[in-house]
Amino acid sequence: MDARTIQIISILIALIAFAYAAWLFAWVKRQPSDNAKIAKIGLLIRQGARTFLRKEYAVLARFAGVAAVLIFVFLPSPIWKGSVTPNILMAIAYIAGTVFSAIAGKIGIEVATIANIKSAEAAKNGIKPSFMAGFRGGAVMGMGVVGASLLGVSLVYLLTNDATTLLGFSFGASSLALFAKAGGGIFTKTADISADITGKVELGIPEDDPRNPAVIADNVGDNVGDVAGMGADLFDSNVASMAAALIIGGALDLGLGGTTHVAMVFCYAALGLLASIVGILTARIGKNGNPTRALNSSTYVTTAIYLVFTAIATAVFHFSWRIWGACIVGLLVGVVIGIATDYFTDDSKKPVHFVAHASKSGPAFTILSGISYGFLSVLPAMVGIAVSALVAYKLCEPINAAFAMEYALFGISMAAVGMLSIVGMIVSNDAYGPIVDNARGLAEMGNLGEEVLEITDALDSAGNTVKAVTKGFAIAAAGLTVIALLGAFMSEVNTAAAELGIAGITGFDIMNPLVFFGMLIGAAIPAVFSAMLMLGVDRNAQRMVAEIHRQFKEILGLREGTAEPEYDKCIDIATTGALKELVPAGLMAIISTLLVGFIGGVMAIGGFLAGNIVSGLLLALFMSNAGGLWDNGKKYVESGHEGGKGSEAHKAAVVGDTVGDPFKDTAGPSINTQITVVSLIASLLSTLFLTVSLFH
Amino acid sequence: MDARTIQIISILIALIAFAYAAWLFAWVKRQPSDNAKIAKIGLLIRQGARTFLRKEYAVLARFAGVAAVLIFVFLPSPIWKGSVTPNILMAIAYIAGTVFSAIAGKIGIEVATIANIKSAEAAKNGIKPSFMAGFRGGAVMGMGVVGASLLGVSLVYLLTNDATTLLGFSFGASSLALFAKAGGGIFTKTADISADITGKVELGIPEDDPRNPAVIADNVGDNVGDVAGMGADLFDSNVASMAAALIIGGALDLGLGGTTHVAMVFCYAALGLLASIVGILTARIGKNGNPTRALNSSTYVTTAIYLVFTAIATAVFHFSWRIWGACIVGLLVGVVIGIATDYFTDDSKKPVHFVAHASKSGPAFTILSGISYGFLSVLPAMVGIAVSALVAYKLCEPINAAFAMEYALFGISMAAVGMLSIVGMIVSNDAYGPIVDNARGLAEMGNLGEEVLEITDALDSAGNTVKAVTKGFAIAAAGLTVIALLGAFMSEVNTAAAELGIAGITGFDIMNPLVFFGMLIGAAIPAVFSAMLMLGVDRNAQRMVAEIHRQFKEILGLREGTAEPEYDKCIDIATTGALKELVPAGLMAIISTLLVGFIGGVMAIGGFLAGNIVSGLLLALFMSNAGGLWDNGKKYVESGHEGGKGSEAHKAAVVGDTVGDPFKDTAGPSINTQITVVSLIASLLSTLFLTVSLFH
Repeated sequence: MDARTIQIISILIALIAFAYAAWLFAWVKRQPSDNAKIAKIGLLIRQGARTFLRKEYAVLARFAGVAAVLIFVFLPSPIWKGSVTPNILMAIAYIAGTVFSAIAGKIGIEVATIANIKSAEAAKNGIKPSFMAGFRGGAVMGMGVVGASLLGVSLVYLLTNDATTLLGFSFGASSLALFAKAGGGIFTKTADISADITGKVELGIPEDDPRNPAVIADNVGDNVGDVAGMGADLFDSNVASMAAALIIGGALDLGLGGTTHVAMVFCYAALGLLASIVGILTARIGKNGNPTRALNSSTYVTTAIYLVFTAIATAVFHFSWRIWGACIVGLLVGVVIGIATDYFTDDSKKPVHFVAHASKSGPAFTILSGISYGFLSVLPAMVGIAVSALVAYKLCEPINAAFAMEYALFGISMAAVGMLSIVGMIVSNDAYGPIVDNARGLAEMGNLGEEVLEITDALDSAGNTVKAVTKGFAIAAAGLTVIALLGAFMSEVNTAAAELGIAGITGFDIMNPLVFFGMLIGAAIPAVFSAMLMLGVDRNAQRMVAEIHRQFKEILGLREGTAEPEYDKCIDIATTGALKELVPAGLMAIISTLLVGFIGGVMAIGGFLAGNIVSGLLLALFMSNAGGLWDNGKKYVESGHEGGKGSEAHKAAVVGDTVGDPFKDTAGPSINTQITVVSLIASLLSTLFLTVSLFH
Repeated sequence: MDARTIQIISILIALIAFAYAAWLFAWVKRQPSDNAKIAKIGLLIRQGARTFLRKEYAVLARFAGVAAVLIFVFLPSPIWKGSVTPNILMAIAYIAGTVFSAIAGKIGIEVATIANIKSAEAAKNGIKPSFMAGFRGGAVMGMGVVGASLLGVSLVYLLTNDATTLLGFSFGASSLALFAKAGGGIFTKTADISADITGKVELGIPEDDPRNPAVIADNVGDNVGDVAGMGADLFDSNVASMAAALIIGGALDLGLGGTTHVAMVFCYAALGLLASIVGILTARIGKNGNPTRALNSSTYVTTAIYLVFTAIATAVFHFSWRIWGACIVGLLVGVVIGIATDYFTDDSKKPVHFVAHASKSGPAFTILSGISYGFLSVLPAMVGIAVSALVAYKLCEPINAAFAMEYALFGISMAAVGMLSIVGMIVSNDAYGPIVDNARGLAEMGNLGEEVLEITDALDSAGNTVKAVTKGFAIAAAGLTVIALLGAFMSEVNTAAAELGIAGITGFDIMNPLVFFGMLIGAAIPAVFSAMLMLGVDRNAQRMVAEIHRQFKEILGLREGTAEPEYDKCIDIATTGALKELVPAGLMAIISTLLVGFIGGVMAIGGFLAGNIVSGLLLALFMSNAGGLWDNGKKYVESGHEGGKGSEAHKAAVVGDTVGDPFKDTAGPSINTQITVVSLIASLLSTLFLTVSLFH
């Protein structure tokens, strides 16, 4: 089948996903809700989330405007050096990348802030309707993210027929992801920590108590961090993996003639979306069913369907079975990494029990044991990524001796596409989490009673378990994607070198001091980036705690519940502070890439990317898993183990959870985006780094 | 000058160092002491330290015996494949490496456990004599370590004239360092944490209270961890840096004829020892002087003298000024990294103040801010190592166009030699720390009064500040050394390939999937290694706490101070547990090297070493600096800031300090040794990995 046809089919499948999302959205909206208090608080949450998005998008628009102008002037090559058309296309593609991702985020926030109300109220009728409201709300986001990314990539490629322009689209998606993930991460943890410190610790009022001025901001945070943020992150990874595969596949098509490899990328990606639609359609929960099992089984169903779909397509279109193998290896390793992550954070497994038990000796032991298991948890994922990259490479290398390296790299990029094929399902499961978390809060604030709370607690707990798995999956997928992007970078450098008539490169030799120089610095960046984000959360939380103290001092009757707090002030602080704290960290990563590139040229950048990937994966896995472990350790103690609520072990476990919050929701998952942004900048500026640098 | 002559001169200088050490030892012994209680406790500490060393060396002897047999059978090439003589030499060199390092450690422990008593009693006469007793005690260790390493390397090289045999010696030193550093680290933190939990927290008795059964073990721990452990670590780095330089320099001499480069390595190393002797001789403190300034100024004096000495030698012997430049760049960057490390741990600087202030909000914020600053602290050191490696390479590359790569790698290895040139001074300063720390404890247990305690406190605090700097220095030096070892590994592979008549390698290309495969796994190892050590401390501390509880229950009158605790039981638990917990972590690192090598061959090992270096440096710097920061943060609060002793901030700061203890004294500094061990194994097994592997 030819590539054009399949791009058009991809667009149609993306439109089907949108139609399905619209149907799901309408279904969620149709669900009954009548509690006035819940409606009122739900509205506050929705308005808060909208305020955050509006401000975030306003800051982003300025940033993207400047970036678009720079892209227009310099990329793919400076305008004074050739035709202006590619530059216009690149700038437009960049803006389209931000807009498509922003739209998906907006849809997700809109549905999540309705589904939370519906899920809370549906819990009055049992776990089944409550689960379905949460799950279908999440599925809207899943369909939106994958539909928008497939639509965007297909459109850009169909219109320009040029993979380099796609890098612009991908960079746009990354820019948005940086704001959404890191900014949302700072927002959500600012609110969460401030609400906990002032509420639970200082005032002794329960979580989600409406007297707490930070409580709405806290619920808003779940949405902007986990729905919009995680959605943008996976949108970013999905687009980047396709862009990398299309760059390498496009180069192969150019060399061999035909359009088979480009067609293959679109075909496999589109089938992933189809498989996710089927997986979501089949998601069911029994009357007294287990929500975790329901979420996981729909993931497995999607995986199995994808396997069958792609095997059929490979047979029908005579694609290479080796490349199919690489794709499937990526997918299976992704699932295995998810399961391994689950081991380190599941409350029925040893690590959680160990941390809970260690908490009896005090908070220092909660921290030490959590950090230790967090460190251990990186091994399966790192080995998994290493093995899948190696197997994919070795599977595809022998396809054509004259293009061994190209095929090998294409294999790795297809493994990334395979791992990300079920991303629609992953985003659905992930967005389910904050919806039912919010539903729990709404049920408490709306006084729906103990029975309802039990149901929402069960749904929330399933959300937390699944979240750990999806985070591990997201990091692993980003890891494989950036390895593919490293290949794309080399491909771009060689294209540029050919155009300039200079010698290309065959790789990045560690014994080349420029490569090693870049590697050491690249490895330090994720640590510095995380530190800056965490210190940002700290500073921002201090500002919010001060505001809460002010409200309790100045608003009479607040403590007694006769007056209302000024929720919007807290939302304002979280929003403004998050955007303020995020910018220096983002700039640091971008500027150090430029510095290394202009000092050490493409060789140093190759090392820089490799060091960045390796240490970024390490820290992202460590922080996400340790954070999830502490969170579930606390919940495990609260459910009556090691002394239960109020015991010394509980106090210690709360310390662990507080440390883990910015680990798992701010710094850890933002590192993904940092790596992708840096990798794309490297590819975009490859010509500049090739020609203008202190050393060569 | 020819290399033989200079090797003999090196041996003479090493003997001078021993003579000087003997004189210092005699001086320390001559100092007056008459307090019976201090003598008694001092004896207990000495016996405890001796017990640990004896057991450690016994386990090590078994390990080394097995390793020596394996080396004899397989290295440098299997005995059935050639002459048996090199194998015998290699096995002997290996054993010599363990023995030389063990002797230096033994000397250090002997003097430290006398100097602590002398320093405590001398404090009755003021800060000056007390400082001198501590400093000169430390200097014995400094001279012992550098003298033994220079003597060993010179002897092995003089007798075999073969750098590969030196790898055996170096591997012996590394084996011992692994036991001494990781084992000592587990010992010291087991005792420290158990003493704190049971003493300060549960019983409310002061630190160093003789009723606490763990108190002697705690004091023993300072000696075995910081004196013997750190000494073995720097012995290891020093030998490894010389071995790497001699391998690369020897290959250059072989190519160019002559022995200039080998001579240069010995000349610069011997001058470093001479400079340290002069530096120690000039160390002085005024009557009311500042001990920190005295320690730092002697470091700067040594650096300046070394600069002058080597410049003269370079002019006289017509060495290359470019190589001299590389050596000096290494030295200066080492000093700069030390100063940067100081910033993050000094109690007059922002990070300590920030962590202390954050502690007011509770322990979670102590941890979060400490981790954040710990992450930030890796940047200057990583950039420093990157820059010094790049500058050394670029300085030396142009010396000879036909041997550009060899000269460039020689430049890096000489930067490492330069950085380690003042190691005699560094070890002296480092061993000073536990001596005066012990002296403080002895002064308290011997009831020498407030005035004496004030003096010993001041000396102890100087020791802590200097310790942070020397740890940063040790990690940076190890970093540069292992980069040089990576070059040595390539050199060894090519020598082996030439002997086998197969194609050699020109480097390790990151785009080669085997290299990337190795890199990802290599990067995970330091995290897993640290986790295993920290969990080992945790398990061991639980055993010791149970023993302390037993003693307080079963020994009547212990709480009232009328009966004596069974100190030796605690020392026994710490010793046995440390050796038991260390072995799995060490084996994990060794076995994963073998697995990666036999799966992916030399390419995968190249990547493995690079990933291991990058992530190892990152984690070692992070853990050491965060640990030092928390330690000083606690001291800063205790000195009356943010609420002072007993405040909420203090409790939170204690949590930080407890987390930091295994960070900075067990896991962080042991990572150095892990990297070196793995690098040496890779070089030793290069022929095997080249011929027997699943992939090539």
